[in-house]
Amino acid sequence: MDLIIEARWVASVTQQQPLLENYSVIIQAGIIVELLPISEARQKYTATSLVCLDEHVLIPGLINLHTHAGMNLMRGIADDLPLMTWLSDHIWPAEQAVVSERYVQDATLLACAEMLSGGITCFNEMYFFPEATAAAVNQAGMRANLGLLVLEFPSAYASDADDYLQKGFAAHDSWRSNPLITSSIAPHAPYTVSNKTFESIITYAEQLSLSIHTHLHETQDEITQSEVQYGLRPLQRLAEFGLLGPNLVAAHCVHLLSHEIDLLAEYSCHVAHCPSSNLKLASGIAPVTQLLARGVNVGLGTDGVASNNRLDIFAEMRLSALLAKGISGDTTAVPAQQALAMATINAAKALGLDDKIGSIEVGKLADLAAVTLSDIAIAPYYDPISHLVYACGREHVSHTWVAGELRYSNGVYANIEPNELKEMINTWQPKLKQHKQ
Amino acid sequence: MDLIIEARWVASVTQQQPLLENYSVIIQAGIIVELLPISEARQKYTATSLVCLDEHVLIPGLINLHTHAGMNLMRGIADDLPLMTWLSDHIWPAEQAVVSERYVQDATLLACAEMLSGGITCFNEMYFFPEATAAAVNQAGMRANLGLLVLEFPSAYASDADDYLQKGFAAHDSWRSNPLITSSIAPHAPYTVSNKTFESIITYAEQLSLSIHTHLHETQDEITQSEVQYGLRPLQRLAEFGLLGPNLVAAHCVHLLSHEIDLLAEYSCHVAHCPSSNLKLASGIAPVTQLLARGVNVGLGTDGVASNNRLDIFAEMRLSALLAKGISGDTTAVPAQQALAMATINAAKALGLDDKIGSIEVGKLADLAAVTLSDIAIAPYYDPISHLVYACGREHVSHTWVAGELRYSNGVYANIEPNELKEMINTWQPKLKQHKQ
Repeated sequence: MDLIIEARWVASVTQQQPLLENYSVIIQAGIIVELLPISEARQKYTATSLVCLDEHVLIPGLINLHTHAGMNLMRGIADDLPLMTWLSDHIWPAEQAVVSERYVQDATLLACAEMLSGGITCFNEMYFFPEATAAAVNQAGMRANLGLLVLEFPSAYASDADDYLQKGFAAHDSWRSNPLITSSIAPHAPYTVSNKTFESIITYAEQLSLSIHTHLHETQDEITQSEVQYGLRPLQRLAEFGLLGPNLVAAHCVHLLSHEIDLLAEYSCHVAHCPSSNLKLASGIAPVTQLLARGVNVGLGTDGVASNNRLDIFAEMRLSALLAKGISGDTTAVPAQQALAMATINAAKALGLDDKIGSIEVGKLADLAAVTLSDIAIAPYYDPISHLVYACGREHVSHTWVAGELRYSNGVYANIEPNELKEMINTWQPKLKQHKQ
Repeated sequence: MDLIIEARWVASVTQQQPLLENYSVIIQAGIIVELLPISEARQKYTATSLVCLDEHVLIPGLINLHTHAGMNLMRGIADDLPLMTWLSDHIWPAEQAVVSERYVQDATLLACAEMLSGGITCFNEMYFFPEATAAAVNQAGMRANLGLLVLEFPSAYASDADDYLQKGFAAHDSWRSNPLITSSIAPHAPYTVSNKTFESIITYAEQLSLSIHTHLHETQDEITQSEVQYGLRPLQRLAEFGLLGPNLVAAHCVHLLSHEIDLLAEYSCHVAHCPSSNLKLASGIAPVTQLLARGVNVGLGTDGVASNNRLDIFAEMRLSALLAKGISGDTTAVPAQQALAMATINAAKALGLDDKIGSIEVGKLADLAAVTLSDIAIAPYYDPISHLVYACGREHVSHTWVAGELRYSNGVYANIEPNELKEMINTWQPKLKQHKQ
């Protein structure tokens, strides 16, 4: 075998056996071929590489279901500002000044380093220059679903909606044979995309069997504006195009009426819940308990570091579990196991990848993270899963594997040199600093 | 001089100069004697010990304004349960089984290790056996304000309210000459303390010049129960005893009517805001923006690890800043500088210690923490103070000093041996495990 991981605990994120103690995970050609007690595994298998995790819990690689990795050089460039000041005076001018193929590749590599060190093995991206994103993802050795961004406004990347679409499809073609990269068409949001463009998107998505990734009902303002402009709330507008379906990942969904939750459930749409970003931008709190109760599949996203300011799924797990309780008045809302599922198998389902990733099961890819429980600052523990969500942080991730390849371990990356990232930051930051708060 | 700390950034938490770049902090006999640019300091001073922090921000030691360090061995013993099940079936039976002088000292030492490694130099404690707490605090070399716990119910510690009070005063006498320890009388909560006992407490507090630390308006249930039992909401009941004043620290204050916020402001009471615990126990969200707007002094607390599950003031800073925005719809609510103030100078004011700690100023004690900004997972940064609150975590604390003494640095404690803590945990956990979920 290529790799055997012996773990004190395996949090498999399966219904049958959510927690295994003293288990080995046997990996061959990037695939999990067997799970069995350590003592049995030692008799049955030998491997090129053996990793012993005697004080750790092994979890499925975390999945960041909504982010803008290409913004990572703008972490905290402007905080605590009203939304329109933040966008108009800082984010947009900064993007106009720097966004290019090189910039996106550099920023994304930084984001990959951040995510790998926090146990994230896969992310759902939406930003300009997706081919540059792919180059960084390839270097890092991560998995990603890259959005083919579409909006009506010109940028350094594309001139109009058609141009975005055509560039997106060219990018999609470029990584078709890449086992780590998949695509969605990514109309930025209902308020930045016209009816005509949405109609094209639906046709293309059907022809190319692509999923769709968009921002939806993030703020009350965008809903009010849509009512004025179209006489419809954005979700209803998308519904009338026939855009709702099991291939739609809608990010945020903070403001939903009761019948809109039913609509998302009826059409098997997926929601990327981004609790930190929604609080920080004062958008509000998504009705996660109601979404889950009605059967909507909900994953977790960080959004970009300009509004979070960490690509940290541990933080989002904890916050989503805590917020659901505080808002509902029910201490049992979003228990730890459910928060972990939102960060793994639910997000995999949203990306149509749940046959490959999102849980530790025979036949799935070995996208895995190890979390150490030996830090005295979080001792003791009673339930490893509850401990993962409420006590651990991403700083406790010791190893991250993608398809059985070790991509990060204890501060060291397989294919990323932190000092080179620092030099890269030093070349971009002077250009960005003039747009800071 | 005893110690010179050269820091890339000093976040002083003062109005005049909140952020200093390339500054030295000069320390003699535990006191900050001067702050000046590094180049000037090098010409003017030499010191026994010089610490160079070229990629760090130096902050005032964080203050945990409400905790139960004595519960630290019960971290995550039961999560995601209804409040009364959690208390009646897990926490209270566990406490009945183990709480003793030895237990409290051991659990508190573990809590001190956790807090020091997260930049916390002082905590406001409420638990049984305060002399045992003091022993652990002394070993760790931390600062603490210890609650002389009072309630009506018998425990392993005391038999009735009078017994709690007399034992508390004996404890208070035992640490009177200790420069690191102060005391409050700590009536547990209005629902566990009788009118007669509150009357005694007021008399004693005046006679002994002691402050008062209590839980207040944490849940809606306790308010309803008080209305039935006393015909008054708890805050009004305390007001009628004359208990409100600048020596009162009220923990939680989740459920407040508008006139109750005015009452807290009018009497200069202090609030210990515990956002993680209030969410996790489904108590709700304290009206922090309104409290601050009306001039109530608000500090941050973690509560105990059975309801958090981290004694992590970085997590509380971030959460308090995010929640305030998400709830108010105002992105400028609780900006980073205010969150940092709540974690330092505001908490110092609440403890009556703001002439000694809570900011980095000449004449104050050198209770300090250094936070490294070199981790690539949080690069880059634009504003060190905003970065502290939104991007950094307690894992970035590299050094913690109390009164100029280095108590923690990069995983090593001056007076605590993590392996001894682990052995200690192994002796207590079998006794506690039978009460786990």
